[in-house]
Amino acid sequence: MFKIRTNRGEVFDTYGQSILEALQHNNVYLPVSCGGKGSCGRCKVRILEGKVTSRSYFGVTEIEKKDGYILACQSYPEGDILVEIPQKLITVSERISKVKADIVRKIFSKNVQLFQPLVKRLNLSVTPPTIEDSRADFDRLLEAIGRKLKITRKDGEQLADYLRQKRWSINVATQDDEIISFLETEEKIYALALDIGTTTVALALIDMEKGEIIDVASCYNSQIAYGDDVITRIVYAIENPKGLENLRKSIVNDINALINTLLIRHKDGEILYVVISGNTTMCHLFWGLNPKYIREEPYVPVFNHYPLWRASDGRVNLKNNVPLFTVPSVAGYVGGDIVSGVLATEIYKDEEIGLFIDIGTNGEIVVGNKDWLVTASTSAGPCFEGSGISCGMRATEGAIEAFSFDRERDTFEIKVIGEVDPIGICGSGMIDIVSELFKSGIIDQKGRLLQDSSRYVDLVEGELRFLISENCYISQADIDNIIRAKAAIYAGILTVLQEVGINENDISKVYLAGGFGEFLDVKKAIQIGMLPNISYERFVFLGNTSLTGAILCLLSRDLKNKAEEIAHKMTYLDLSRSKLFMDEYVSALFLPHTDIERFKIHSD
Amino acid sequence: MFKIRTNRGEVFDTYGQSILEALQHNNVYLPVSCGGKGSCGRCKVRILEGKVTSRSYFGVTEIEKKDGYILACQSYPEGDILVEIPQKLITVSERISKVKADIVRKIFSKNVQLFQPLVKRLNLSVTPPTIEDSRADFDRLLEAIGRKLKITRKDGEQLADYLRQKRWSINVATQDDEIISFLETEEKIYALALDIGTTTVALALIDMEKGEIIDVASCYNSQIAYGDDVITRIVYAIENPKGLENLRKSIVNDINALINTLLIRHKDGEILYVVISGNTTMCHLFWGLNPKYIREEPYVPVFNHYPLWRASDGRVNLKNNVPLFTVPSVAGYVGGDIVSGVLATEIYKDEEIGLFIDIGTNGEIVVGNKDWLVTASTSAGPCFEGSGISCGMRATEGAIEAFSFDRERDTFEIKVIGEVDPIGICGSGMIDIVSELFKSGIIDQKGRLLQDSSRYVDLVEGELRFLISENCYISQADIDNIIRAKAAIYAGILTVLQEVGINENDISKVYLAGGFGEFLDVKKAIQIGMLPNISYERFVFLGNTSLTGAILCLLSRDLKNKAEEIAHKMTYLDLSRSKLFMDEYVSALFLPHTDIERFKIHSD
Repeated sequence: MFKIRTNRGEVFDTYGQSILEALQHNNVYLPVSCGGKGSCGRCKVRILEGKVTSRSYFGVTEIEKKDGYILACQSYPEGDILVEIPQKLITVSERISKVKADIVRKIFSKNVQLFQPLVKRLNLSVTPPTIEDSRADFDRLLEAIGRKLKITRKDGEQLADYLRQKRWSINVATQDDEIISFLETEEKIYALALDIGTTTVALALIDMEKGEIIDVASCYNSQIAYGDDVITRIVYAIENPKGLENLRKSIVNDINALINTLLIRHKDGEILYVVISGNTTMCHLFWGLNPKYIREEPYVPVFNHYPLWRASDGRVNLKNNVPLFTVPSVAGYVGGDIVSGVLATEIYKDEEIGLFIDIGTNGEIVVGNKDWLVTASTSAGPCFEGSGISCGMRATEGAIEAFSFDRERDTFEIKVIGEVDPIGICGSGMIDIVSELFKSGIIDQKGRLLQDSSRYVDLVEGELRFLISENCYISQADIDNIIRAKAAIYAGILTVLQEVGINENDISKVYLAGGFGEFLDVKKAIQIGMLPNISYERFVFLGNTSLTGAILCLLSRDLKNKAEEIAHKMTYLDLSRSKLFMDEYVSALFLPHTDIERFKIHSD
Repeated sequence: MFKIRTNRGEVFDTYGQSILEALQHNNVYLPVSCGGKGSCGRCKVRILEGKVTSRSYFGVTEIEKKDGYILACQSYPEGDILVEIPQKLITVSERISKVKADIVRKIFSKNVQLFQPLVKRLNLSVTPPTIEDSRADFDRLLEAIGRKLKITRKDGEQLADYLRQKRWSINVATQDDEIISFLETEEKIYALALDIGTTTVALALIDMEKGEIIDVASCYNSQIAYGDDVITRIVYAIENPKGLENLRKSIVNDINALINTLLIRHKDGEILYVVISGNTTMCHLFWGLNPKYIREEPYVPVFNHYPLWRASDGRVNLKNNVPLFTVPSVAGYVGGDIVSGVLATEIYKDEEIGLFIDIGTNGEIVVGNKDWLVTASTSAGPCFEGSGISCGMRATEGAIEAFSFDRERDTFEIKVIGEVDPIGICGSGMIDIVSELFKSGIIDQKGRLLQDSSRYVDLVEGELRFLISENCYISQADIDNIIRAKAAIYAGILTVLQEVGINENDISKVYLAGGFGEFLDVKKAIQIGMLPNISYERFVFLGNTSLTGAILCLLSRDLKNKAEEIAHKMTYLDLSRSKLFMDEYVSALFLPHTDIERFKIHSD
């Protein structure tokens, strides 16, 4: 037994396991997509102290090797070691599940008939053959099922022995008109809800019989290496001979790494269905579809409504025939993630008008009710997801998610996810910081950080920063970035409202979504002019609704059909050609806005 | 330019081609399944004279190399050469097509409505996008088609560029509810009818729009290396760890080699559908399905009715999503080949009773009319297909297909397919030889070749032989083999007739099928007691009806459905438990039969 210490202060015992296994055993998940076979090179870590033996070094350069880098899955400690854990980790979180579980529970408790999971278990007694009855095995199976189902060649290959080993008493998992898999008696039927965001990828593991969210895992979308937003990625895909393939590999690897992590934690079932929810470009890149014409006027995608392709088509490491349903898109810039969101908010059912805002790398807006739905998209950038901000991070352990400033005593308080030392700032933390510093006069109306306004403001490396902790600060450039993002979101909302001819008072409920974690202070988001000045109690914060919508599709055939219907029904407004939007955007590049009247009531 | 001579006397010119290409160019087809990339090792030939340069020697052993063996696809002549052409060749024949073409033409001319090919061409004008209409490409395509079709991911990947390159005016090939492929304007839609026999594999290339048979190719089933009949192959599959996989590889390689040959000859279209017809075991081995329980009482196959699997599932070298329809089986020993035969004979439509006999490695029998069909199978062995007979060969060029003997002058005449020097004897030739020699007293009633009965009878290598030419003879063992085969067929027919309670006179038509080539002398087949003593004019010889039935399925959705119906409807008689059959078999081990009365009228 040796001890593994990490640069983050953790200490684990290890018993002959690989470093990867030891880390996994202690819930530290590297983004391994090969399952620990040494063939993806994604578990590269650096040994800071101690000795290890390595079986192979796939993907480790000579220089890295000299620097102490090894593959965690191929290396074994030879004594106590100190490991540097890379930033790029998979986060597994039961915490996030709560908001989603509540939404899911609420929707199904209102109408229990809605619960019709896409995969079902059939418990069958098959008639064994006799001399008088020599029908084929498959004909016996269909007789027991009572209708004609398809079966793959691969399952057909197993059928004869499976029937006999189980003595003609079997369990099969079916979807629609096909057999998806044979089951062991105690084996659970799992499915995956997958949200492919431009910045973040998230996966929820669902027990299809209980209708429960079992686990959630997420990581950054590795495509970030090729560009922060959808446009730069489309350009990369088009302009490089292997561009599309690289982007595809990148996201598929992330997804396989997430699946790998969930399978380590849950070995008692088989994953037999996947619902994918993402913006139009992300879905195109995942499926390897040409995104070129999404970028060119009139912004035409190849697919809005995708056929039901399979795990093997998507190169996803599941049983080849597992169906991958892609939540349909509305247009080139309003994707399945927004359709999922509409499903989760249920605004498509209401009499009164609702507003749905999803703040990701793009900010998408939907306004409407049961009779009509209008949608638009605006490029907010990835800052609220932690990308492009000096100390930005996703809403995971170590992220500052709330901030309050005491002007009198020139001091502040922070709230960190997981109540650990802060290692970065997530979206809700950024909103709090800008709002509190603006209110306290440390940032002016133009967003300028004022030197000498606080003892925490300092000039470091040629830029003004507000220093929060040893590791965390916010810089002038960060603030500019956040203001541009909030301006785009606000201008988008205002433009849509004006285009459909309603004003803020006509909106009965505002549904907010995004990867902010559990918490977003709506009051502060209004104070910086990101959200329209509507009374707080009308706001509902729903977290990642793209993932929630995908879960709803998995658990309800009706809701899956509803998603198709919503995608068809929504009217898309193209803001890129709107003068109104440009005017609103420029006006919103102030704190809270050039027209201070608009924010009068709530800005103290 | 060099000259290539072959051991068979051919002389070809070559212009910088590989030896494989030069042979192919002159219609000599080696069974290459890799398309000439040097990766299958199936084009091994021996250079008898002259020099060649070889790029690689995949699959050629060191000993073979010293003996002059090379890969034809990887080797280029350095001067004039003499090549030894191996026995294992693919035969391409427009000749065989005539019988089949006549049957197909006759069936469709009686009812033109029947002609509904499984793949159709759609000629489409797709609406291009505008600023007002930014729907997805696929939605535009479906609008032009007028209904919802599936599309593969792979085709989805091409869609955007294909639409734009073709300026929104396109041709697609569809089957059922899916798009199978995009087409070039002039590109033809081809399909394959595939007969997997225990001994012979045959492939017909069909123009799906014209409904014409374009070409036919055939070769031996390489599984012969693992056993002559279905039972020995099942045993091999079960008893060897890689048995099933080896058998599967073997037949798939043959099929890919046949496809390869057809594609060399026909480059003007794409193959977009395959109908497979074969006995139950052959279909199981092709699909890699466990054949174990076909051999054990009560002889249960995994599938009688197969799902519509794809080229990729079958490892067939065609576009991955090309559908492979397997003609359904009736039971473990009556397969899709017999259902195909029933389709080709049309006995399922007649008022009067018909008898269908398919003589392959198994002899299958069907009796019935539009109201009922009874079927049985008997193991005849592969001798009529040329296997297990000293100078046996398939009914291809060089085969003796007819033989007549002049007792007076102790001399004979032969007819050879292709009017070349004889290189072997095919099934119809064997029947003629045994019949003529029996009639002339050179073979006695027990099938013994009588020494000194003819100047052509000689004792060679310890066995009595009747010498026909330098290369061709028939031995005592061959005659014994043929008599066992004919006895099994006759006994099978008699047992079925007795079981259904009818006699020979109730039969209005006898349909004969098998790989005998163009010609079978029914009179002689009756004379040796292989066929029941029914007047000649009631016999119809149809050639390979398994292939014809597969063609009919390709060209008619109704007939494909009819095949399913026939397979469901037929009653299977198990001869293996029949005492009647055993008695009949033993009695038929004579020429023509122990009960000579039965053959009185026609035996001179």
